[in-house]
Amino acid sequence: MMVRKVVHRASLAVAVAAAVTATPLQAAESQASIEERLSNLEKQLAEVKPQATGEEGFAFNTYARSGLLLNDDLKSAPGTPYLTPAGSVGGAVGRLGNEPDTYLEAVLNYRQVAENGTKSHYRLMIADSTTSSNDWTAGDGALNVRQAYVEFSDIASFTGVFRNASIWAGKRFDRDNFDIHWLDSDIIFLAGLGAGVYDLQWTDGFKSNVSVYGRSFLDFPSDPQLAGETDSTDNIILTANNFFGPVQWMVSGMTAQDNDQRVVGGVQGTAADTGFHTMLAYHGDSFFGLSDGNFKAAVLHGEGLGAEVKSLGADGNLNEDASSTRLAVYGTTYLSDHWRIAPAILAETSKDRYINGDEYNWLTFNTRLANELTANFEMQYDVSWQTMDLTPKGYLGRADVNGNYTRFTIAPTFKPQVGGFWNRPEIRVFASYSTWDDELDTYSSTDALGDSATDFTSGQWTVGAQMEIWF
Amino acid sequence: MMVRKVVHRASLAVAVAAAVTATPLQAAESQASIEERLSNLEKQLAEVKPQATGEEGFAFNTYARSGLLLNDDLKSAPGTPYLTPAGSVGGAVGRLGNEPDTYLEAVLNYRQVAENGTKSHYRLMIADSTTSSNDWTAGDGALNVRQAYVEFSDIASFTGVFRNASIWAGKRFDRDNFDIHWLDSDIIFLAGLGAGVYDLQWTDGFKSNVSVYGRSFLDFPSDPQLAGETDSTDNIILTANNFFGPVQWMVSGMTAQDNDQRVVGGVQGTAADTGFHTMLAYHGDSFFGLSDGNFKAAVLHGEGLGAEVKSLGADGNLNEDASSTRLAVYGTTYLSDHWRIAPAILAETSKDRYINGDEYNWLTFNTRLANELTANFEMQYDVSWQTMDLTPKGYLGRADVNGNYTRFTIAPTFKPQVGGFWNRPEIRVFASYSTWDDELDTYSSTDALGDSATDFTSGQWTVGAQMEIWF
Amino acid sequence: MMVRKVVHRASLAVAVAAAVTATPLQAAESQASIEERLSNLEKQLAEVKPQATGEEGFAFNTYARSGLLLNDDLKSAPGTPYLTPAGSVGGAVGRLGNEPDTYLEAVLNYRQVAENGTKSHYRLMIADSTTSSNDWTAGDGALNVRQAYVEFSDIASFTGVFRNASIWAGKRFDRDNFDIHWLDSDIIFLAGLGAGVYDLQWTDGFKSNVSVYGRSFLDFPSDPQLAGETDSTDNIILTANNFFGPVQWMVSGMTAQDNDQRVVGGVQGTAADTGFHTMLAYHGDSFFGLSDGNFKAAVLHGEGLGAEVKSLGADGNLNEDASSTRLAVYGTTYLSDHWRIAPAILAETSKDRYINGDEYNWLTFNTRLANELTANFEMQYDVSWQTMDLTPKGYLGRADVNGNYTRFTIAPTFKPQVGGFWNRPEIRVFASYSTWDDELDTYSSTDALGDSATDFTSGQWTVGAQMEIWF
Repeated sequence: MMVRKVVHRASLAVAVAAAVTATPLQAAESQASIEERLSNLEKQLAEVKPQATGEEGFAFNTYARSGLLLNDDLKSAPGTPYLTPAGSVGGAVGRLGNEPDTYLEAVLNYRQVAENGTKSHYRLMIADSTTSSNDWTAGDGALNVRQAYVEFSDIASFTGVFRNASIWAGKRFDRDNFDIHWLDSDIIFLAGLGAGVYDLQWTDGFKSNVSVYGRSFLDFPSDPQLAGETDSTDNIILTANNFFGPVQWMVSGMTAQDNDQRVVGGVQGTAADTGFHTMLAYHGDSFFGLSDGNFKAAVLHGEGLGAEVKSLGADGNLNEDASSTRLAVYGTTYLSDHWRIAPAILAETSKDRYINGDEYNWLTFNTRLANELTANFEMQYDVSWQTMDLTPKGYLGRADVNGNYTRFTIAPTFKPQVGGFWNRPEIRVFASYSTWDDELDTYSSTDALGDSATDFTSGQWTVGAQMEIWF
Repeated sequence: MMVRKVVHRASLAVAVAAAVTATPLQAAESQASIEERLSNLEKQLAEVKPQATGEEGFAFNTYARSGLLLNDDLKSAPGTPYLTPAGSVGGAVGRLGNEPDTYLEAVLNYRQVAENGTKSHYRLMIADSTTSSNDWTAGDGALNVRQAYVEFSDIASFTGVFRNASIWAGKRFDRDNFDIHWLDSDIIFLAGLGAGVYDLQWTDGFKSNVSVYGRSFLDFPSDPQLAGETDSTDNIILTANNFFGPVQWMVSGMTAQDNDQRVVGGVQGTAADTGFHTMLAYHGDSFFGLSDGNFKAAVLHGEGLGAEVKSLGADGNLNEDASSTRLAVYGTTYLSDHWRIAPAILAETSKDRYINGDEYNWLTFNTRLANELTANFEMQYDVSWQTMDLTPKGYLGRADVNGNYTRFTIAPTFKPQVGGFWNRPEIRVFASYSTWDDELDTYSSTDALGDSATDFTSGQWTVGAQMEIWF
Repeated sequence: MMVRKVVHRASLAVAVAAAVTATPLQAAESQASIEERLSNLEKQLAEVKPQATGEEGFAFNTYARSGLLLNDDLKSAPGTPYLTPAGSVGGAVGRLGNEPDTYLEAVLNYRQVAENGTKSHYRLMIADSTTSSNDWTAGDGALNVRQAYVEFSDIASFTGVFRNASIWAGKRFDRDNFDIHWLDSDIIFLAGLGAGVYDLQWTDGFKSNVSVYGRSFLDFPSDPQLAGETDSTDNIILTANNFFGPVQWMVSGMTAQDNDQRVVGGVQGTAADTGFHTMLAYHGDSFFGLSDGNFKAAVLHGEGLGAEVKSLGADGNLNEDASSTRLAVYGTTYLSDHWRIAPAILAETSKDRYINGDEYNWLTFNTRLANELTANFEMQYDVSWQTMDLTPKGYLGRADVNGNYTRFTIAPTFKPQVGGFWNRPEIRVFASYSTWDDELDTYSSTDALGDSATDFTSGQWTVGAQMEIWF
């Protein structure tokens, strides 16, 4: 009985064990299947992920701003950082509470990776600009294509100094443009149609870019007797950018065949048909070595067609003797846990710019201050002071002026998450007070200052609301 | 022997059991790795999924229609729901078989979620409209940006009545616009450039929106002597929407400084420079309480600049004494398993609209009927009857008219899946017969009715084919 | 003892077995959870994958080219494959190094699958074209919508000959257009606004398409006395495409009511108001049966409005007696491991085209040759020879010419991965030499050849850089 029992138990044990052995076998099978399914999932996800995140395939980027800018009659107020007389030659003031337009850039990217690892990136940028507040702006909008280029990187067969190089062709904003955000002014803005190579790596700390850019000088007057007689030409720019660690040295030359036939200020034969431009810049990873943050400083100099030192090669009215030197500096840092500051200086002296003997001197000092109050809210303050001494010698009917412009803006600002100058989107309301020397009203009959139609004189309050986003 | 056997068996059992215990150990290891891989997959997929589905990152939406509308000579026929005299003041008739244009809206969205949970949504809408049948319409298309705004929701730091609130700024169609689809007429259409807050939750059943919208009145004539003398101004609209369950009460005021300098009908000083507008609406979740379906009913009233009761603040020619009252009702339901019906009424009375003493009275009755025949095919029928009594008092050279317009359309319609009025895309062919009182031909020399160039008089057959899609 | 031991052992065995049975139970539980999680992942990934890859939802496609084309003064040179006198009637020459424009097509697709399996595809194509090199081209760009249509396929309820059929409506390029890429010339290009059905499957090897396309003839002169008097009409095209294996037979008729009122060459009453067009084509899957590769050959013939044999129905100036016959042939193959060749012929004879008695005869022979040198680099060569004998009889002030044009281009070309004629993107630099009979300069005062302003006469060197991409 016992034995039987034992046998019975043992049999049971064996039976149980047998049952169990069946399980590992099944488990093995099932694990094989699990392994297969996991591998399959991992493989599929590895394909899907770069597509979904935009690392490969399509990706969407944007810069956009849109809002109302009103005077105390609740009518649209003149605005733009370039509204002062100095603005006509690049002297921007603070942008906060100073933008009456809907401006947007919709960027459609497409990235591919070849089997050999070479990457390609197609970028299309469509932009629009309008000051109309209406929802249908077919008549006053300006939809156009600002970029359409291809860039190759990680090029499989490139070696030596070319190992890390990227090549590109098409219509583009140069990769290495950079700006003072708070003035809506690029420090350097090179754009047009061309081709080039980035990141020729000469040594560990020294790399260069070389590019050719073309720009179109379209329909300029070319007969001093006949107002309607126009001509066109191309400005071809050869540019090299050299990076030694944080130091950047850019040098560019340009030529616009027959641009000396252009009539400027009623005179033919004085417009530049060549130009030279250089920039020395420093990209700092602290706030001028004083605290955490960043700073950038640049000195630019240009002659002839290069004397428009920011928008390189974009101004065909420049005199053959034109000469400009510009200084641009800005930095950002936290003053305390909840206060940020970003001071900036932009200044230029320019001579023989359009007319022999003319002279344009201006300096803008700007500071943006922000006080982070909750997870979603901060107060922003912007103060600009600009001084200018402009002697256009009658160019475009402009009068000589000498004076100052001051602007102060306060902007309660909502954002998804506060935490720095670069977090966007922002939704802001704002009030600005601007005041300037009456003399500045006389500079031009077509600019904002002194416009009797909008009664935009002496001192002005403006208010508004705006969104700004980039991603 | 038995015992040995038992022992043997038992040993076997132990051995087997030992072998089995080894398997769980391995299994545990393998399961750890499986666990890791599963967790990793789940984590990655959780990141990828909202990007792939458009819940986060980029998403694409569209409304588009495009097709041929021909008369019996196979030439383009005049069309649009607004082709009758009443249409000039908003009196739409049925749209089915009545649309000669390619109209489309391409909406590019980008959604982000901040670490603190606050959501942001950027929406860009590019639209185009043309009646050309050519594939290249650079000369006659109208590509423009209709929306570019940012909206924040689930705002981390908002509490109290703001807990569920969303805030926005930019250029947009108001979130709470709604329409009678079959007439291509919004019941209320508020759009422009501004900022606001949605869903202030006062109590469980009561919430409000408050917004400011600007619109541009551009280049209106402002000197009765000089035809070319124009001016511009802004119409600033303050609007509040209040929802009590299914009841909506909207109230808006607007001001357009200096719009009274506008010349309307040769006279200066009569155009409105302020306006008032209100709407009481009911959003029903049944077919008027009679059967499953939905219905909406609204009464709108406006004065001065508010007398354009649909496109709020968009008409600057309105008289200072203008007064309009509009009724809008529609519903949808199934009559049987395969028959759907959607009746609608739109009617307005408007006085002193543009000229003192003018009067515009019109009423449209429309019914859309559909008979679902297969998984992909249905017959659609649309009948419109419009009666109008218009006394424009010479405004824009228009003649007084009094009469009726009737339109009947039959449209064999293909769709991926039948099953309701809102399923799209549709591909349809159609034939329409329209007839109207001869008197209506005399209203305007520039509208479709009575146009001798297209011989569009009395009664007309038109045919065509069209696609319509939204997603 | 033994027995006990046995019992003990057996008990142990049982215990162990029990322990083991516990593990399978846990394992089963754990496996259930793994199974659940795997299934869940598989289900989610199955939803996500088609969205991420563009099989469902949004997908982005593009054709784009952009680059500089300069003469030896570094000014923009005239270009386009259609720059010769024969180009005015469709006689293209090689495109390599011959394109001065930024042209791009941005295609936004949205694909849906209904529950019943029916698929729908919405396609929106926005295109731009400009020869400006500037980054802001709001004034000289041409953004417009070239396609906006919906196509249904796999239609659940379609049976019989319709089983594989697709239906479409809207504005589109016909699905079955095809081209000679190296000449930038379609062999057949049908586009416009319409509706149709593809792939009616009559038998295994025989299927057909039937479509109606409309095109707009806009603002043509319609009074021989009054230059400003214009009219408009529509050209309605009924077309059928029939495929018998590799053989395609296309036949089309068209009618443009009142187009005979058009004034052409100062004369009214001779313009065609109907047209007929047919094409017989062969789509070969080898290089003319000689080697691997492909070839296409087509003969096209048209009369009246059909005498523009490529851009079907797009030319309303055609004479009622116009008659054209065109031959188009090309093929591609590898000559060796690293050399590819693509010869092409395009030739046409056209009579009574615009003016009774005029005659246009031309033939282009073109060969593209490529030598693949590294994974990312190849040398491309393009040679074109065109002969023409054109007798326009004064149409548009054009002179009779008889002569030849020859063009040779060499283009060092970078691409992510070499390996065939269809791999894109490409970044290329190029130099071209073109030469032609002086007589060709006299054809037209508005075309590129003989333009004294650009000194584009006799023989020309041009250089440039360009990107080209499609995906």
